[in-house]
Amino acid sequence: MEKKFVAINYIHCEPHYRERFEQLFATRAHAIDRMPGFIDMQVLKPNGEGEYLIVSHWKSEEAFKTWTSSPEFLEGHKRGFEDVKKAREQGMKSPMQSTFKTYEVIAH
Amino acid sequence: MEKKFVAINYIHCEPHYRERFEQLFATRAHAIDRMPGFIDMQVLKPNGEGEYLIVSHWKSEEAFKTWTSSPEFLEGHKRGFEDVKKAREQGMKSPMQSTFKTYEVIAH
Repeated sequence: MEKKFVAINYIHCEPHYRERFEQLFATRAHAIDRMPGFIDMQVLKPNGEGEYLIVSHWKSEEAFKTWTSSPEFLEGHKRGFEDVKKAREQGMKSPMQSTFKTYEVIAH
Repeated sequence: MEKKFVAINYIHCEPHYRERFEQLFATRAHAIDRMPGFIDMQVLKPNGEGEYLIVSHWKSEEAFKTWTSSPEFLEGHKRGFEDVKKAREQGMKSPMQSTFKTYEVIAH
């Protein structure tokens, strides 16, 4: 299937949170897999320092946007969001910060 | 096929060079496709401003490293390297700057 639309979530993890972060994805909810227009995703761990990348492929930008405002989005991020909330309630720095960027596949 | 090793080339293009850059990939040499251990690649164009991403999947880090020092690497980048060389000879800023980062796929 042709992959046309790509969303990458660039995630900076605090060092103490990296093991937990990786474990969340190793046991992920797979809520995103049920979304119409979702093709596949990969979780990329940087060699050395740097950000983790969550790369997801979609049939269209609309399919991606529908997901970001869906109950599945909240379900899929539940444990991570709880970790962030807990840190904030304890007056601590968030264990991760993320930035979404989107792309069009223009060549293979 | 399982994708274990990923290399991303982050490329900043000067605005005047973006059309040429995209055309180079639309008509790419496919030299990389002949490398042992190469799986596939995608060229990602940012929505809005930002860097282009050349994402390549490899069976192993060794396969990727073999490629970066191969004749195919020079062949595949020939036209781009010539553009950079020409700009420098004319005392102009390079039309693009690139940075490689490598990753391990830890989840799907």
